[in-house]
Amino acid sequence: MTAAQRLDHVGLNVADIDAMERWYCDAFAFTAQHRFHLAELDLRIVMLVDGSGQRFELLQRSDGAPGLRGATPAEAAATWGYGHVCFVVDDLDATHQRLLALGARSVVDPRPSPEDGVRMAFVHDPEGNLVELITPPPAAH
Amino acid sequence: MTAAQRLDHVGLNVADIDAMERWYCDAFAFTAQHRFHLAELDLRIVMLVDGSGQRFELLQRSDGAPGLRGATPAEAAATWGYGHVCFVVDDLDATHQRLLALGARSVVDPRPSPEDGVRMAFVHDPEGNLVELITPPPAAH
Repeated sequence: MTAAQRLDHVGLNVADIDAMERWYCDAFAFTAQHRFHLAELDLRIVMLVDGSGQRFELLQRSDGAPGLRGATPAEAAATWGYGHVCFVVDDLDATHQRLLALGARSVVDPRPSPEDGVRMAFVHDPEGNLVELITPPPAAH
Repeated sequence: MTAAQRLDHVGLNVADIDAMERWYCDAFAFTAQHRFHLAELDLRIVMLVDGSGQRFELLQRSDGAPGLRGATPAEAAATWGYGHVCFVVDDLDATHQRLLALGARSVVDPRPSPEDGVRMAFVHDPEGNLVELITPPPAAH
């Protein structure tokens, strides 16, 4: 009924774009697709991409400040706006441990989800952004 | 080197989950995949999915409040946390007009992106969340 459209990426605003690029590449097998600097805003952007073409954008301005983050999943859900991203992973416990070794902090340790039969966990990335991990759903699309 | 992993969804915390479900389904051809209510948090969730299996999660708590939103792309980029999502669309101008007719507000009218050769626009969804639209990149992966 309409022209093709699909979610291309989510944009995460960070304090230290170099450190966060390294972290997301190590954590989730992204690589840098392109970099950009918009001088008038002192805005640096790096677009990350994974092996399937999925993109994830990091943005940094020199005058950044805290703001768009919830401390826990429950607090985030009560605060309007984009609150977390979720990665589906084959081995939840190993991935959770690997992210902690890379500098993430556990927010919700691996456990069965109350929602839909998957197992889930939440971590903070090194800057405190909520990242959910889930196992593939039993009847995935 | 590691187990398979991919971005599954972004979670958007909303004030009116029924209205926002209708809006995202109308705007971006999502359908509801499943619904869930976690009584202990009075948390309602609807998972949306598009024809390709890409998911987009809406969450609502009864005691929600404003918080995780930037007013403009430049302001969002200076505020640490998840700031926007971006949809790639075949017809940028028509999609932009269609979203405005559905109740979005234009933040950045369609124009060439300074970044990478695409054209882009930003709108606020009906609750004020930043949604970017871009045309396919010239050398898409």
